Parts: sequence; C-alpha cells; structure tokens
Amino acid sequence: MPVSSHVTGGTVTDRSVFAARHIGTDPADQDAMLKAVGYPSLEALMDACMPALIRSRDGLALPPAVSETEAQAELKGLAELNRPMRSMLGLGYFGTHTPAVIRRNVLENPSWYTAYTPYQAEISQGRLEALLNFQTMVADLTGLPVAGASLLDEATAAAEAMLLARRAAKRGAGDVFAVDAGVLPQTLAVLKTRAEPVGIDLQVTDLSAGIPEGAFGVLLQYPGADGAVRDWSAVAEAAHAQDALVTVAADLLALTLLAAPGEFGADIAVGSTQRFGMPMGFGGPHAGYMAVAEKLQRQLPGRLVGVSRDSGDQPALRLALQAREQHIRREKATSNICTAQVLPAVIASSFAVWHGPKGLRGIAEHAAGQAARLAASLTGAGIALASDAFFDTVTAAVPGRADAVVAAAAERGVNVRRVDADTVAASCDETTTEADLADVCAAFGVPLAAPAAAAVPTGLARESAYLTHPVFTAHHSETAMMRYLKRLADMDYGLDRGMIPLGSCTMKLNAAAEMEPISWPAFADVHPLAPADQTRGWRALIDQLEGWLADVCGYAAVSVQPNAGSQGELAGLLAIRAWQHDRGETGRDVCLIPASAHGTNAASAVLAGMRVVVVACDEAGNVDLADLDAKIAAHAEKLAALMVTYPSTHGVYESTIVEVCARVHDAGGQVYVDGANLNALLGWAKPGRFGADVSHLNLHKTFCIPHGGGGPGVGPVAVAEHLVPFLPSDPSEATGPVGPVSQARWGSAGILQIPWMYLRMMGSAGVTAATASAVLAANYVAARLRDHFPVLYTGEHGLVAHECILDLRELSKESGVTVEDVAKRLIDYGFHAPTMSFPVAGTLMVEPTESEDLAELDRFVDAMVAIRAEIAEVASGAVAVEDSALRAAPHTAAVATADAWDRVYSRTQAAWPGGVSAAKYWPPVGRIDNAWGDRNLACTCPPIEAFGE
Amino acid sequence: MPVSSHVTGGTVTDRSVFAARHIGTDPADQDAMLKAVGYPSLEALMDACMPALIRSRDGLALPPAVSETEAQAELKGLAELNRPMRSMLGLGYFGTHTPAVIRRNVLENPSWYTAYTPYQAEISQGRLEALLNFQTMVADLTGLPVAGASLLDEATAAAEAMLLARRAAKRGAGDVFAVDAGVLPQTLAVLKTRAEPVGIDLQVTDLSAGIPEGAFGVLLQYPGADGAVRDWSAVAEAAHAQDALVTVAADLLALTLLAAPGEFGADIAVGSTQRFGMPMGFGGPHAGYMAVAEKLQRQLPGRLVGVSRDSGDQPALRLALQAREQHIRREKATSNICTAQVLPAVIASSFAVWHGPKGLRGIAEHAAGQAARLAASLTGAGIALASDAFFDTVTAAVPGRADAVVAAAAERGVNVRRVDADTVAASCDETTTEADLADVCAAFGVPLAAPAAAAVPTGLARESAYLTHPVFTAHHSETAMMRYLKRLADMDYGLDRGMIPLGSCTMKLNAAAEMEPISWPAFADVHPLAPADQTRGWRALIDQLEGWLADVCGYAAVSVQPNAGSQGELAGLLAIRAWQHDRGETGRDVCLIPASAHGTNAASAVLAGMRVVVVACDEAGNVDLADLDAKIAAHAEKLAALMVTYPSTHGVYESTIVEVCARVHDAGGQVYVDGANLNALLGWAKPGRFGADVSHLNLHKTFCIPHGGGGPGVGPVAVAEHLVPFLPSDPSEATGPVGPVSQARWGSAGILQIPWMYLRMMGSAGVTAATASAVLAANYVAARLRDHFPVLYTGEHGLVAHECILDLRELSKESGVTVEDVAKRLIDYGFHAPTMSFPVAGTLMVEPTESEDLAELDRFVDAMVAIRAEIAEVASGAVAVEDSALRAAPHTAAVATADAWDRVYSRTQAAWPGGVSAAKYWPPVGRIDNAWGDRNLACTCPPIEAFGE
Repeated sequence: MPVSSHVTGGTVTDRSVFAARHIGTDPADQDAMLKAVGYPSLEALMDACMPALIRSRDGLALPPAVSETEAQAELKGLAELNRPMRSMLGLGYFGTHTPAVIRRNVLENPSWYTAYTPYQAEISQGRLEALLNFQTMVADLTGLPVAGASLLDEATAAAEAMLLARRAAKRGAGDVFAVDAGVLPQTLAVLKTRAEPVGIDLQVTDLSAGIPEGAFGVLLQYPGADGAVRDWSAVAEAAHAQDALVTVAADLLALTLLAAPGEFGADIAVGSTQRFGMPMGFGGPHAGYMAVAEKLQRQLPGRLVGVSRDSGDQPALRLALQAREQHIRREKATSNICTAQVLPAVIASSFAVWHGPKGLRGIAEHAAGQAARLAASLTGAGIALASDAFFDTVTAAVPGRADAVVAAAAERGVNVRRVDADTVAASCDETTTEADLADVCAAFGVPLAAPAAAAVPTGLARESAYLTHPVFTAHHSETAMMRYLKRLADMDYGLDRGMIPLGSCTMKLNAAAEMEPISWPAFADVHPLAPADQTRGWRALIDQLEGWLADVCGYAAVSVQPNAGSQGELAGLLAIRAWQHDRGETGRDVCLIPASAHGTNAASAVLAGMRVVVVACDEAGNVDLADLDAKIAAHAEKLAALMVTYPSTHGVYESTIVEVCARVHDAGGQVYVDGANLNALLGWAKPGRFGADVSHLNLHKTFCIPHGGGGPGVGPVAVAEHLVPFLPSDPSEATGPVGPVSQARWGSAGILQIPWMYLRMMGSAGVTAATASAVLAANYVAARLRDHFPVLYTGEHGLVAHECILDLRELSKESGVTVEDVAKRLIDYGFHAPTMSFPVAGTLMVEPTESEDLAELDRFVDAMVAIRAEIAEVASGAVAVEDSALRAAPHTAAVATADAWDRVYSRTQAAWPGGVSAAKYWPPVGRIDNAWGDRNLACTCPPIEAFGE
Repeated sequence: MPVSSHVTGGTVTDRSVFAARHIGTDPADQDAMLKAVGYPSLEALMDACMPALIRSRDGLALPPAVSETEAQAELKGLAELNRPMRSMLGLGYFGTHTPAVIRRNVLENPSWYTAYTPYQAEISQGRLEALLNFQTMVADLTGLPVAGASLLDEATAAAEAMLLARRAAKRGAGDVFAVDAGVLPQTLAVLKTRAEPVGIDLQVTDLSAGIPEGAFGVLLQYPGADGAVRDWSAVAEAAHAQDALVTVAADLLALTLLAAPGEFGADIAVGSTQRFGMPMGFGGPHAGYMAVAEKLQRQLPGRLVGVSRDSGDQPALRLALQAREQHIRREKATSNICTAQVLPAVIASSFAVWHGPKGLRGIAEHAAGQAARLAASLTGAGIALASDAFFDTVTAAVPGRADAVVAAAAERGVNVRRVDADTVAASCDETTTEADLADVCAAFGVPLAAPAAAAVPTGLARESAYLTHPVFTAHHSETAMMRYLKRLADMDYGLDRGMIPLGSCTMKLNAAAEMEPISWPAFADVHPLAPADQTRGWRALIDQLEGWLADVCGYAAVSVQPNAGSQGELAGLLAIRAWQHDRGETGRDVCLIPASAHGTNAASAVLAGMRVVVVACDEAGNVDLADLDAKIAAHAEKLAALMVTYPSTHGVYESTIVEVCARVHDAGGQVYVDGANLNALLGWAKPGRFGADVSHLNLHKTFCIPHGGGGPGVGPVAVAEHLVPFLPSDPSEATGPVGPVSQARWGSAGILQIPWMYLRMMGSAGVTAATASAVLAANYVAARLRDHFPVLYTGEHGLVAHECILDLRELSKESGVTVEDVAKRLIDYGFHAPTMSFPVAGTLMVEPTESEDLAELDRFVDAMVAIRAEIAEVASGAVAVEDSALRAAPHTAAVATADAWDRVYSRTQAAWPGGVSAAKYWPPVGRIDNAWGDRNLACTCPPIEAFGE
C-alpha cells in the first residue's frame, strides 16, 4: 500500500512502511518534540522555517513506495537483465576473488561501513590501522616511501600526479605534461579534462623516442594498455635530465613480479587497487593509490595516515599533515580531493593481509602464467603479438578478424577486447581458468598450448622484498583474519554504536536492505566496458536513478559519473564554463563564493580554471547582499558563477536565496548550489526550481550510501536544461564538449543500488517526511540546548534548518575549554563529536538527521548539558582546565583502571559520566598529539616493538 | 589443483588452499609444536597415539578439494536445480519476510553464530537477553507463565509435552495420550515414534466427542491442520475432569488474534516460531517452543533462561534450574533434549522486538484477511469449505478435482496442498499477495472476491494484551534495532574474539564461505513438502552430503534427519531396537554405558525404551574390561547395545576399543559409537570399520555448522548395512519400521550447505590434515601445561587425542580455588573457559581444535600458567581464597574503575592480567549467583527498574 496513506504532514504513522523504519522518531516522539520547539505540526514548522518563495508545490514524482522485499525483488529483476560473462577486457579492471571472510566481515559489516571519516582519530584506530596497512602495501610494492590513504581512481590519481608534478616543478619549467602513448585510454581522457582549464599542455607521444621540450612531467604506464612491459629506466633518466618528474601508472599486482617504479626512477606512482579483492562493480568504487618520493611527501594530495602518540605516550594513528589538505586550503588549493576510498582501501589492504607477499605473488604468477599460455597458444598458431614481454595481457594481431574473434569469444561466454579492426587483446587475472583460455583459443581458432610460466622480462624481474611487516603474515588462517578484522572494527565508533551528529555530513541510516544488493554478483561482477547488450540491467537502474534524482532536485538531467562530491563540483563548474565558452563568453572566469562555503568549493573552482572571489556574510551569517552587488559589479563581464550552499553551511534557510540567484543571473553568471545540505530540502524545495542552474548531490549523505569510514562517496552532477549537453562524457569515447571527470562512465556504479533502494522504499511521501523529521530533530536539539550553548545562526522565527551551530567561543574564552576538549569528552559519554570548527572556528555543528530516535537525541542533549556543567566548574575556577576531565578526555580503560589515580575528578566521572552502562564504548587510545606526529612523520606500519610499554 | 599435492603427512603447505585457511597452524608452527610434543612429524604422532588396529588404510573418497569460489559455484548450480515457487502448503511452514536488519546483523554475523551454549553466563548476556525476550514473547502469546528458551521443532515439542504430561500425571493414571484428529500429520508421526518405546498408548480421536479412558494427557491443535479454529474450552474442561493435562499445539502468530491457550485451560502449549522471520529452509532449523503452567515449571524440558543477580547485586541472566536438565540426570532423565535452537530463537524474538505487538497483529491480520478473501472467493462460487472459522488456512471441497487444482496452481507458480483426491487446502501468510490469491482462484476456476476481513470467530477473539514489556516497543527504527542487536552481540564472547577450547564441543572455524549459502533464497525459501520436481537441488545436495558422511565414517548410509545430536542418538538406538525386534529378539533392552559417557547417552537410551547399565572405567579412564564382561554376563540375553564414545570422553584413544566391540557383538549386542569426538578420527579411522554398527555425527562440531550460541545442531545418524532399513522414515509418509525423530524429512536441511561446503573445500587430504592438526594442538597444550596442571588421562606414550583433561582436584583441595574460579578468571584473561567438570568433576577439559593458530594456543597456555601462579599464591597462604582475584573473577569494567578499591590485588591484576590490550573483552556482569536465581525464579523480561542502581 502506498506510503502516502500513512503520512500526514510528514509524520509516518505505520511502522510496517519502510519510511517509518528509516525515520527514528515516531508520531508520539514528534508530538513531544514539536511541543518543545513550539509548533503544532511538522507542516507548521516547515512553513515557519523555510521561505515560502522556495517551496516547491508540485511534489515529487517518485514511484509509490514499496516494502524492502518488494523493492529487492524489483531490483533483482533489473539484475537479471544483466548477462554475466567472464571478462578478459582488462584496461584497469580485472576479475578478483573477494575472500568471503573479508566480504562478510568488512563489506557487509555496519561497523566498517557506517563509520565516518576518521577526523576523530581516537575513535577511528581500527580503520586507521587498515589504512596504514594500505599505505605500507602501496609503498612497499611501488618502491616509493610515502603513500596516501587512497585516491578516487587511477585516472584521477594520474591527474593529481600531473598537478603535483607541476607545482613541484622548478621555477621556469614549461607547461607540458607528456603522456606515453601506452597510457590507459580512460586515464588519458580524464587528463584531457583536467589539463585544459589549468593551462597544462598535454602531449601524447612515444616517450621512448624522447621527452618533449617544456615538459615538467611525464606519465608512463607499466604495463602499458596493450599489456607490454617496457623498461622505462632510460626514459626516466631522460626526463630527470630535463627536470621533469616521472609518474608511473603501475599495476600493483604486476609489481609483485616486476621491478618497482621507485627502483627505476619514478618520483610518483599511481594506479588502482581494484584487483585486490574489490569487484569490478561496472566501474567502481575502487581505491586508487598514489605513492611519492620523500621529497614530495608534503605535496601529496588526499588523505595521509600517520603514526603519532597519545596522551599516554603510546603509538596512535591519525590523519597526518592536515594543513596540507585541499579543503582547508580553499582558493589556495592545488587539488580538490577531500575524501578517500576508505572502504575499498580497507578491502584491498585486507586482501594483502590475507594473502601476504607469497600469496599475492602466487596470484600474479597465476595471471601471468595464464597469459603466457595464451600467448604460446597464439604464437604457436602463427598469430603475432604486440609484445612478447607482458604481464597479464596479450594483444594479438588478427588482420580484419577482430570483430569475428570478439563475437566468437562472446558466444562462448567470454569478453575479449577489440582494440581495432585488426587487433584483439585479452587480459588474464586471478580468476582465469583453463576453460577460459580454451574458450578464447577457440574464438581465435587456435589450439590451447601447454601450461607456460610467466613471461616477465628477466631484466625487469622484481628482486626486492615487499610486505615484510608482520601484519602481512600474521593473519593467514581464517580464524585469525576474522578476529583481526573484528578487533579493528571494535576499536571504532560507527553509526551502529550511536549518533554521529555531524553537521553537513548527514550521517543517517544505511539500511541493510539498501546495502545487500551491492553484493549481488549480477551487479558486482560486471566490467564497465562490457557490451551494452550484456548490461541492460545496470543501464536501466542508472537511468531510473538519474531520473529520480533529477526529479527530486528539480533539474533536467543528472550524471552519476562523479565519484565524489568534489568531482561533482568540478563537473558542474566545467559544464558552466563550457556552456559559456560555447556561447563565446570565454572571458568569464570569476567564481563568487561566500566566506562560509566549504573549502572544496573554492578548490574545485580553481581546478575548473576559475578565479575565486569571496563574498562576505552578514552578521546573521547570510550572504551579504551589498557585498554581493559590489563583487558582481567589480567583476561584471568576468562573472562566471556563484557557488552557494543551500541551506547555508550555517544551517539556515536564507530567505534571500531567490534574490541572490536572480542578481547573479542578471549579471550573466550561473548559479551553482552545492547539494551538501539537500537533506533539508527534499520534497519541500528543489534547487533547480528556485534559481540554481547546477548542483552536485552527495549520495553518501542525503541518499544513504554509507560513509564507509571515509569513502566511497558519490557526487552526481545535476543540471538545468541548457547545461545538459555539457555533462561529463564517456571516458571511452570522450566525444562531448566536456570530458569525463572520473575514469568510469558511471563512476562508482557498484553502489548505486543503495540510493535506488532508498528512493524506491521511501517514495515521495517518505522522502518528504524524512526531510521534515530531520528539520524537527535539529530544531529540537537547538531548543533544548539553547540555554546551555548559544545557537549561532538562526533564520526566520529563530529556527534552524537541519543542523545547528553551538557557539562555544565565549565559553572557551571564559574557561579555556576548547571545542576539541568538548569533542573528546563526548567520547567518554559515548558519542561521536559533531563537526568541529566548521564553518565557524570555535563552534560545534550538530546535524542529528531524521534517523535518530528521541531517546538518542535526548541522550545527546543530556551529555551536552552535563559537559556544560563541567565547563562551568572550570570557568568558576573550581577546577583548572589542565586538570579537568575535559582536557584529559577521552579516557581509555587503561587510564580509568590504572593502579595510581591522582586526578582532581573521580574515576567514575572519568569513565562513566553518563552513568554506568555495560555497553560502554572504550576509546582504544587517549588524546592524540597531532603536532608531534607531523614533526616526526611516519606513514607506514611501525615495528611491533613500538607498541610495547 | 587438488589439495593433496599440498598436503604432506597432514601438513598443508599452500595457503591458497582452503584447508590451509581452516587449519590455524602452518608448517612452521607445526614443526615447533611437534618438537614440544617430541615427534618428528604428524604422521609419527598419529602413529604413536592412535592404535594401529583402528587405523583405516583405505583413505577417504571425497571429491578433490576446490577453492571457495569453485565450491560456491558448484553449490549455486545445485541451488539452480530447485524451482522456487510461492508456497501456500502450510502445515506448520509459512512464508515470512526476514527483516534485512535481522538477517544481516544476526543470521550473518559471526558474533551471534559462532558463540557457544551460554553455560558461561557472564559472557553470554547478549544472547541470554534475546532468549529471555523469546521466553517472554512465548509466555505472553500463549498465556502461560513459564516458557523455555526453545525446543527443536513443533513435533518434538509435542512429544516432550506428552512425556511431561505423563510424569506430571497422578499416581495410578492410565497410559493413554489422546491426540485430536486435527493434529499436524508430522507431529502425529513423531508422537508415534516416541510413544511406543516408553509404553504410552497413543490414541487419535475426535476429542470433542469425549476424552478416552485412561488418558493422562490430551493434545489439541489450534488452529487445526485443516485450518479450522475450534473452541477447545469444553474439551479442556473434560480433560481436567479426568485429571488429564491439556497440551495445545498453537500457531504463535494466530495467537495475536485468538484467545490464548492459557486462557481456555491449557496446561502446556507447544509450537513453532518459524514464521517469525525464519525461512522455511526445506524443513528447518526453526525454534520450537513450549510454555507451561506454573505448577509444571520445574518439569519443563530443555533450556530455561532466568534472571538472577551478579556479585555486584545487578540483575544478570543465566540458565535456570540446571539440575533439571536432562543431560545431567543421565539414566534418570525424562527427556533427552540437551540443546536449544538459539539462533532461530534469537531471530524469532528479534522479529517480535522489531514488529512489536501492533506489527505482529498487523501481520496476522494480513494473513487472516487474505485467507478470508480466498474463502469468500471460493464460497462465492459455490465451493464448500471444511470450516468457516479459520485463521490463515482454507480447506476446500473439490470432489474429484484436487489433483487438477493443485496442478493448475503449480502452473501459475503457486503450491497449494492436496489433502485428498477431493480436497485442497491453501495457507496464507505474511507474504501472500493479491496476485497469489488471483492465481489460486484461477486454479480453482473461481473469480477473486473483494478484500475481506479476518474470519476469526468472535467468541475466540484475543482480548488480553501481549508483548507489553518496553523491549517490544523501544527498537522500532532500523537505527535503534541495529544498535540493540550490536549491543547484545557486544556483550558476548564468540569465536570471533578468541579461542573457545571446549572439550567435546569442537568449537572450530565456521568459515564465511560455508555460511553464505544458507542465505541463498533458492535454498532458504523452499517448503519441505514442495513436490520433488521442484527440489532437485536440495535432494542432490543431501544425497551427496549423506554419501560423503557415510564414507568418512565408514558406514553404509546416513540420514540427516535428526536435528540434534540427542535425536541422532535416539534414532540410532531405535534402529538397533527395531532390527533386534525384527529378528525376534524382543527381549533385548539393556544398554551398557561407560561411567564416563555424556549424560545424553543414558537419556536417549531411556527414551528408546532401554534400561541403562553402567560399565565402570579403570584407573586409566578406559572401559574396565572385567566389568564389561561381568555386565555382559549378567545381562546376557537382555543385552541390546553398548554406547561408547570414541575417542573416549576422557580424550584418549582407548586401545581396547576393537576388543570391546567384539565382546559386545559376541554377546549379541550392537555397538553404538557416539560421534561427538569424530574430530579425532576423520581421515585416520572410521567407526563403521573398527566395530561400530551405528553412530550419530555432530555436524555442529566436526563439520563446521556453528553452535549458534546454543543451537541449531544437526545430528545425522549413520548405520552399517544391516541397519539401513531402520533409519528414521519420512514424517509425511512414515512407512518404515522406524518412525521419524524430527518433524521434517531432512531435519534442519536449511544449514546443510555448511558441511557440504566444508567437505567440498577440504577434500580427503584436507580433512585428514585437520584431524592430525587437532590432535597435535591438544598434545601441544597438554605438553606445555603438564608441569603446571596434571593431565588426567593419557593413552599410549602418554599422549592424548584431540582434547586433554587438566586435573585441578588436588590444587582445589590445597587452595580452595575451584574450577569455576579458574573458568571465570580466564574471562579476565580474554578466554572462554574449557569444559568444566565434565567428564570428571573438578577438572577442565581443553579441546583447542585445528583452527587455532600457535599464537592463540600460546596465549591460552600463558594464561593458564599465570592462573596457576595465582593459585599458588592462595595455596601458600599469601592470599585468602575469598580475597583472591580468582574468586572475584570475572572483573567488570565497572568494578575495575570503581572509585573505591580495597582489594588485596591491584586493579591492573584484576583487569589486565594478560597485559594491557585495547582489544580487551569486558564481561558485562560479574560472577552470577545461580542458586539465588533458582530460589527466586523469574523467566521473563524483568521491569526496566530492576537495572537501576
């Protein structure tokens, strides 16, 4: 039965409806909360806080909600439209066996996937350890000392390497980035997209023949797209002689058999870790990687985990060199990366822990051996190969026969790759069987030769050791692995423990029914380049989802390609730029951004080739209209766009948004509304209808893709009619005016089942109810906490939108207690801290979301009130801030049970401030010293001895 | 590639082989361990400890091992042979939607399924709470105050009720158990099997017409098998007038709409909770239930969870009235039930927590409404019904047309039930849709009528409240439910935390690849009575598995029907008895059982109609041959069987086993070898070849079905050629000489994928290696601990088999420290205790299994050595036992962080005796007072206030 019959003014009245499971507060709770806020109904509350001008009266056009069983059955029907084939298409995507112990205990375990980005490092030690393993694995295999905690994919990692090379280049270096012709086509397509706006001259050439003049960097593929393994040492030397940095895009599995990039001169290595246990997923998500030489470590884009020490002088992990991060650098950013692919990276590093160095080498030898056998079969029958030095990919010359071979293989259930009319390539991997080879040989019309050994060129054979840290050999039985993964998970605080009230990050329920379908093989095991007639289910799902997203946001079209919010921003700005250029307005390059904006906005604008001009905010936190006018006037003909978040990052529905949009449009600019706060709009207002031309959405916020401990995110770009032709194009064709921003046509397709399920189960009424419930929750928290902490910004009638900012600045001044102290003390009370010092330093931004129930909201409020009393004690002088439980927080079990106790507060106050509960979460480490870690940078697994007493 | 090429003398050398993942110790570990034990190789160790006479030289005939991916692919192929249909077959099995949040967080979560039976209550509070919820749910719905923590299935629960009624009957009562004709056919079949051996006269009759003379009890079905809802109050009154106890087999879902059995005179209620979220699984496993009137509470068979208090005076749960349990009562037992269906019971109680009273009622109304609509459709077209008072099942008269209707429905994808040539029944449930009804109506050739309301007779409408405890209304959002399930899981200690070294219980790895297929819908959603042509995959799987099990044990045939070890024992003894009767040897009724046997052996013998005669053990713990001869002589013509465990429950390979078997055979008896210790034999010896005629196997021990926190178990019976005709028969036909012991033909079929996967991935060499590795682990522990604790029994060369008994009796005498103190202290060290005081009081029996790695074995040994030092301190008088950390164990976090500390040992010694580790497991409660709880029996959810300070 349709949800709508159970939804009255946003309150869901029937628990058998999914929306009532997703929304934490029930009608009785909501009545009590409305009373506290002072409104008779959700409708009245929304009327009061949301400007009437932006209200959408036409509702949503989602299909009627169905139950979780019905939705899964419908999705199963789509899955069955896919025709699963064995893939030998290669080009950066390979078959891999996800070990069941990892699938069950990581990919399908809410303790891993519901966790947030590890900003609160003390309660994130488990995934930080898994990421440190990842960095160690990448550093070892690439032979470069410093690796980051993952990037979005191989192609964007290559783009980041290009940007890194340029900023590291000597003064006076040229603008040329030289790419070898053997690079993966999707990497080249993304590089093209990214080079042009920032003025880099991309040249594709055979680098063995020489380094182009003016090159500040070169990119080499290892092995090449055709499978050939080349000795790049002479090229690297030549590049260095011209002061060009050398980036090698390397296959991590191949590096178990091949000399490491760092050993033949690479300054930077990039690539994908997909084949380390992550299903192809029709293109993603997978963890890209980057490793760099030591001299470049402070230039590394993206997240970096490092070892530091905690208040008890024990080793403790946290994100290192955070000042380097791009979302903090704003318009000075050199990249717009502000997230990682944590869950895929955890899976990849767990794959390495599980298999160990010998096991990985065995997998590589299997793939290479199968390729060698295929090569022998072909050459034995007189078919020439592109190269006789290869790892896993054989490229064969079949003049005029390529289509026939591909078709014959497909008939046998195997996809091989058509390179051109005369050439076919086939890639082997962990999963390639003798039967696969037999099928491929039959397609080529040759007999299968005897088994052969890997064909790695002797001069390039790997001789150095890798994965020598004990973690890569200690957990090889499944029992040990299961326990290791649980031990790590137990260290972390996820949504499965309690509320994560992160302003702007919308940590809501990731329902099991939404998550289950990402494991279905009919979706997971599909290569992104599989022929269209094999992927009808995937395409139907994506079509439907893009349509639903366009509807709920009021746009003409959506592309799910951007695999992070930052990439969605970039795609949106590139669309604006291309549209303006198409109209001949090539001089428009100024992007206005309010002072309150998320730093990534500015970073994306820079990378889209725009100049950032900051617009001031008034005292109420809103865009200062006078300053906006001034800035528009100042840049008149140059105005490209305004980027604004709505509701604002201050958590308020600005009443002037329609006016702001109009003024920008009047000046010839386009309006970009950042979709970070869509959870305050869905069902009630549509950015595409109240003045915006483009938005990106965060499927990992509003649409229930879990944060995965820090990624994957999905950041679709949504545009108005006139911008539709300027959406990112297919990386394998790249025919549109705007190139691709991610390496796969549909980005992280492999997790789009989650928002599909969410919208299918919620329906229009459910989504609408969720929004109002989220707004109610935020206003309830604000109302209950207002007497204890000032709520910094409010809109009409003193109301907030879906989040509220608690202002601690006065309290900090009086008491010396910092927001960090409060954040860490919340851990003792059993909470993840709200967003710290964004968008305003010295504040906490609370976003409870609609998924929390009243008991949890009250538990949080009670904790904050109790902390307020602790601050008062300090402010009154009764307790010195240095001696307070606030400053000493969080308290580990080791601290609370220490034999000696010389603190001014009791053990009970330290450990059980919210009352004794058997379910208490104990942080595994005490307060971490970030500065010490940055001064003593260490970003690979420390020796075991470091953890001794 | 076959495993065997990587297995040398039992050591697996290639980690890419599943066996090397299953077996915890690698070749280097094993070398070190062999050195400690004093043997050069596993082969040499096995030669030394296992008598040559029993060694099997013909090896195993399992198919060559394949990888987890290959095995799952093969199993998927079997699944695809099943033809999934919508089921309206009813008869105790119904469609149900397992909520995804429960499937993912309970059924697929190792923290729930790898846990052991909650004997160590302090580390089992989570599942004990879930079971208390189960008991509360059953008590509320049945209207009877005391419910157990689940029984094996509805039919065996009815059999238990019959036995309970007899022992509760007044002196001089008759032998008649009167069953109403409306009882489920499989229940009747099991009752017949169970009544005859114990001399009960089972009479099937229309009880409305009167209670048979001599009846000590009656059984009523509510609603009846034909769906009819009858008012049984007059029958109950009549039964009571004759001093007969009234048992009502009731559908728990129907009780949300119908008057409760306890309200119309039932003394006992039994039934199934399958439709509370557990898939049909081709017959099981499901949790059966029993609830009783207060006067009968101490007679209740099976497990009962009760509330008691811990050392800190906080409420704490544990198994209540344990002295009542049947495996403890041995030959005085009145039942042989010694386990429960914990995991299915947790799922059923979670289903109730999730839906709450209103939700359950809504589900019942849906099912009843669909049935009413179907009934209206049929009667509207002139088809007569068996009853116009029904809940979910409609039985229709279609003279001569039943086969045609069934076939027509099947053609439309729906199974309806052929009652006889003129009658068809159809059952509705939670999943029944309008489309299903339309299909069924089409099959009947009638139009679908308009929606109708439930047809529950007004006089029988439920008026009393149920599920009023807050737990059934507090967790209705998925976020809250996920957290509740995690909070419960976090309280418990499972294999996912560390070793559970339980002698005789074989707690080994339950690999994720083995577990995943139990969730596959093509297996899970099949009704046990679905036509054979729809279940070819299930039958092929079972055929293969039974064949493999027969091979590895050296028997002619296996039946997987018994759904617990105890039921396997019963089936085996019934086979012996029936064979002897068939030969005219009806006087043989003596069952010899060594003093060391598990109590269940004796209980099963009693229930098979045998008299138990105990055979003494000699000082070495072996069967005393002289006493055996004496007992054989004394009972000469009466000798039916000897039941013996091999290796013995003392953990030793008795060298005389072949001789023992021969003497029993010579005297005309049969030999039953209890398969509890098969993990010490597989691949090296076969009971069916060294003298046994019958065994039961524990698939939940040796063959990797997880313990599920206390069930489900699976206990197949394996027999030699001459006993094959006497295996349990199909409950729906019951044509063989021995009736069924479980209500489903293949028992708990729904989890047989687990042992199938295990054997398929291990192969002959892997299984053989596992056994030797388990024996090595036990001998390693014995060798390392021997100097600290005497190892009670050993065999040849001072070796043990796969487990060892540590004798604490002298130490206890010297120090006052009990085995319980040691067991609870082990919790502080991060371990689950070994088996306590079985088979010898005052000892601990350690079975490490092959799945633990050397690091974990050493961690355990180190903990035991440290505890030995703590005992020495007490023994020396330095610390009084009452003041010791041993007696105060386990230490909760609340205790270790209490503001006051007046103990003689430090907090560090209390909480971190094995060294400080962030991964420490904290027990949620302190030592539990069992006696207090038994004196103050409370077996339903306590009011929330009980948990206050």
